[in-house]
Amino acid sequence: MKRIDLNCDLGESFGAYNLGLDEQILPFVTSANIACGFHAGDPSVMRRTVTLALDHGVAIGAHPGLPDLSGFGRRNMDVSPQEAYDMVVYQIGALAGFVKAEGGTMQHVKPHGALYNMAAKRQDLSEAIAEAVYKVDPALILFGLSGSVLIGVGEKIGLRTAEEVFSDRTYQSDGSLTPRNQPDAVIIDHEQAIAQVIGMVQQGSVRTQQGTDLPIQADTVCIHGDGAHALAFAREIRDRLIQSGVSVLAAGHG
Amino acid sequence: MKRIDLNCDLGESFGAYNLGLDEQILPFVTSANIACGFHAGDPSVMRRTVTLALDHGVAIGAHPGLPDLSGFGRRNMDVSPQEAYDMVVYQIGALAGFVKAEGGTMQHVKPHGALYNMAAKRQDLSEAIAEAVYKVDPALILFGLSGSVLIGVGEKIGLRTAEEVFSDRTYQSDGSLTPRNQPDAVIIDHEQAIAQVIGMVQQGSVRTQQGTDLPIQADTVCIHGDGAHALAFAREIRDRLIQSGVSVLAAGHG
Amino acid sequence: MKRIDLNCDLGESFGAYNLGLDEQILPFVTSANIACGFHAGDPSVMRRTVTLALDHGVAIGAHPGLPDLSGFGRRNMDVSPQEAYDMVVYQIGALAGFVKAEGGTMQHVKPHGALYNMAAKRQDLSEAIAEAVYKVDPALILFGLSGSVLIGVGEKIGLRTAEEVFSDRTYQSDGSLTPRNQPDAVIIDHEQAIAQVIGMVQQGSVRTQQGTDLPIQADTVCIHGDGAHALAFAREIRDRLIQSGVSVLAAGHG
Amino acid sequence: MKRIDLNCDLGESFGAYNLGLDEQILPFVTSANIACGFHAGDPSVMRRTVTLALDHGVAIGAHPGLPDLSGFGRRNMDVSPQEAYDMVVYQIGALAGFVKAEGGTMQHVKPHGALYNMAAKRQDLSEAIAEAVYKVDPALILFGLSGSVLIGVGEKIGLRTAEEVFSDRTYQSDGSLTPRNQPDAVIIDHEQAIAQVIGMVQQGSVRTQQGTDLPIQADTVCIHGDGAHALAFAREIRDRLIQSGVSVLAAGHG
Repeated sequence: MKRIDLNCDLGESFGAYNLGLDEQILPFVTSANIACGFHAGDPSVMRRTVTLALDHGVAIGAHPGLPDLSGFGRRNMDVSPQEAYDMVVYQIGALAGFVKAEGGTMQHVKPHGALYNMAAKRQDLSEAIAEAVYKVDPALILFGLSGSVLIGVGEKIGLRTAEEVFSDRTYQSDGSLTPRNQPDAVIIDHEQAIAQVIGMVQQGSVRTQQGTDLPIQADTVCIHGDGAHALAFAREIRDRLIQSGVSVLAAGHG
Repeated sequence: MKRIDLNCDLGESFGAYNLGLDEQILPFVTSANIACGFHAGDPSVMRRTVTLALDHGVAIGAHPGLPDLSGFGRRNMDVSPQEAYDMVVYQIGALAGFVKAEGGTMQHVKPHGALYNMAAKRQDLSEAIAEAVYKVDPALILFGLSGSVLIGVGEKIGLRTAEEVFSDRTYQSDGSLTPRNQPDAVIIDHEQAIAQVIGMVQQGSVRTQQGTDLPIQADTVCIHGDGAHALAFAREIRDRLIQSGVSVLAAGHG
Repeated sequence: MKRIDLNCDLGESFGAYNLGLDEQILPFVTSANIACGFHAGDPSVMRRTVTLALDHGVAIGAHPGLPDLSGFGRRNMDVSPQEAYDMVVYQIGALAGFVKAEGGTMQHVKPHGALYNMAAKRQDLSEAIAEAVYKVDPALILFGLSGSVLIGVGEKIGLRTAEEVFSDRTYQSDGSLTPRNQPDAVIIDHEQAIAQVIGMVQQGSVRTQQGTDLPIQADTVCIHGDGAHALAFAREIRDRLIQSGVSVLAAGHG
Repeated sequence: MKRIDLNCDLGESFGAYNLGLDEQILPFVTSANIACGFHAGDPSVMRRTVTLALDHGVAIGAHPGLPDLSGFGRRNMDVSPQEAYDMVVYQIGALAGFVKAEGGTMQHVKPHGALYNMAAKRQDLSEAIAEAVYKVDPALILFGLSGSVLIGVGEKIGLRTAEEVFSDRTYQSDGSLTPRNQPDAVIIDHEQAIAQVIGMVQQGSVRTQQGTDLPIQADTVCIHGDGAHALAFAREIRDRLIQSGVSVLAAGHG
């Protein structure tokens, strides 16, 4: 029986600023990527989010980002591999403090935003991130873009990995996501998005923009936790995956 | 045989800014309080400092501070007990990431600056800090001002504590340090400073500014890691303590 | 004919975080207090807010706060008078950059949150803030709590001032606001709030919680720019003031 | 008679962190580029540095950088042109606050670090920066790498510019600086460095690493304000320029 993890970025509020429908989205996902204070999140938000995830039985992961709060970690920065290693160790550790204080366990690490995107392509940054994860706790699962450099490096270093796919993004024949500045980058139609995910999970392939069928490993699907239709879509994709005979389970489950 | 720990604030550099004689002071101390990125320190400085401390066999502690880099954590802030709890969990966790990555063990936690001073007097902040330490790891030793509220609260919650004394500060008959804005607050004469420490360790008492002999528990002495005479004084106080028959050992040793 | 200014805190968004109904509230107010990047706001938000205010013909003021983004500038900090002076000069200057770039004029300065509250009572901080305003531009109007130390100091240094009153807060017989931790601190009933403001403007007095009628100078009323009823209340208080024969005009108008 | 400006980055301390020999270097330079709080500097440092520069009769310029304190503004970041515009307006304004408070005048703007380097090559960022400078004050002089895109864009928008040359860096035949990762990038020999500067000022050309003589406009020379030999070299280069018949004057002088 096929299985899939549904992950969502959570804990992105900061101080007086609220962002995301954390509490409402938690019933529909199986893994929570919790911001660690660099691109979003603060210590109080982190504690509350860890508690919420534990209450909902959702697996907890660190979601380390670049030190760029005003840019939400979405702007590429020329950090060195050593700096990337250091900031990932720091952020995993900080979240682990709350997880330990609440008696929980951390399941995974998923880099955020520009760090995720840069690591998907760059060997040196991927090695730095994978090493950071491994040295803090070799039992952590490394989440990365399906087929990316980060996944390959993570496996080589000895980490368990979860390859992430997207329901609302189209793919190129080389396995990369269609860049956002292209008109067909985003899938707006819910049926098409759901069909793409079910196809990736059940058949292990995705129809690319070039019309080819590309083999793709789908271990976890990125679920959005904010926006007008986020909750409805999260519920629907979960229901439809289950109806199609897929087990919806956290990446580290069982 | 009497014993004493010598602790020093380390890892206070930040980015391009260097502060402190970390590498030179390490041979003379037994416990390192490492800044965790809020009042000082950054992830790269933290990694390097953890490595340095391990290389010198110096016990490692987290040195959490207020989120006030421009004020170096020395300005009182009206943080709530819950905020204090959260920021202490976060910072202990962040440092623990590096300690774990390097294969070491964290020995203690010593609050920094204004957080240390506020906690010395306030029950609510002390309870928040002690609970943060305890919930992250009940084996951690809590460092605080000798005889302070923080020490009492820490013991009550079940933590091992280390009561800190100062060689270069004079004491009031109520056990508090003479405020820095008073002319006789600081002991400049090295012989007087050393005599005060040896007296606190050997006799368990200190001569106050009021001329009384105050019983005081001396588990660890604060050693300064910057300034013109820091290294010479650190060496001298260590040597003189040993000559007087005191064992200089990390608080958590043996 | 009596006149009143209606001021509102604006530009409190930051990066990906949106806060406040800036565009919707602007038609109802006459002075905008724009956050300057310390407790809220960022350069891009500041530019957009300055442009919005100019488009609506709303007078622009700097709203400097403490360097405490995670606490939204609401936590008291032991900043020295010199530090307060420096941070106020910095923030006025930063906002003035955008005002000048857009061809506008800055009307006023209103300290934010904890800085506002501390300055209301402390002579040294008030002198520092007033001097900062005066030295950057002696034509700026200083906004402060009606009857506060800040207002007195501002007038003494030679600044024009605007004394601020609150529609939704009750007053004590000494002229201070009832502290928020007391049950009767906030006026929830809109009619009562409007009546209080009209009374302060028309009669120059307010009924205190002790039942006395306290003389009070009302130059400007604080209007809230977020929350469910903010827009409706802003419109209503403006309409009712006009209906009662009061001119609603920016503090520096005419 | 040929003339040259000698500029130096100043005000790079932050909070408890001291950096640079500001007071000692000021007698030897004619223009001070003062950090504005993003990559270095804080409000108190800015006030003190403005005062110091005025005391020494040294012209004042804003030195805006990327919002990257931990990286000292040296790491490239993918900021948009609009973001670059906004952060430059903000920082010029902030420094202008202190200049105005002290009764001085701002002469120039020189982007810092990665912002300087990116602007040297990119049209969109250069236009954003030049527009920011122009809209805040069209009388400001824009400092940029000699022959760079930034200089061309600045002149086109109507700004006066000062083309900056380096004494201690070698040049490529296309006018770019030899990248620092190449072995011959830095000129260590003082005589060679001084000869290069005098040649650029007197003959208007520089001998490139390819052996060609490249025409170069030298309006201002970058002088370093920290490091072991900074003061001695600053004095020497100034003396030797004067001895060679060059007037050492601030860019905006006369």
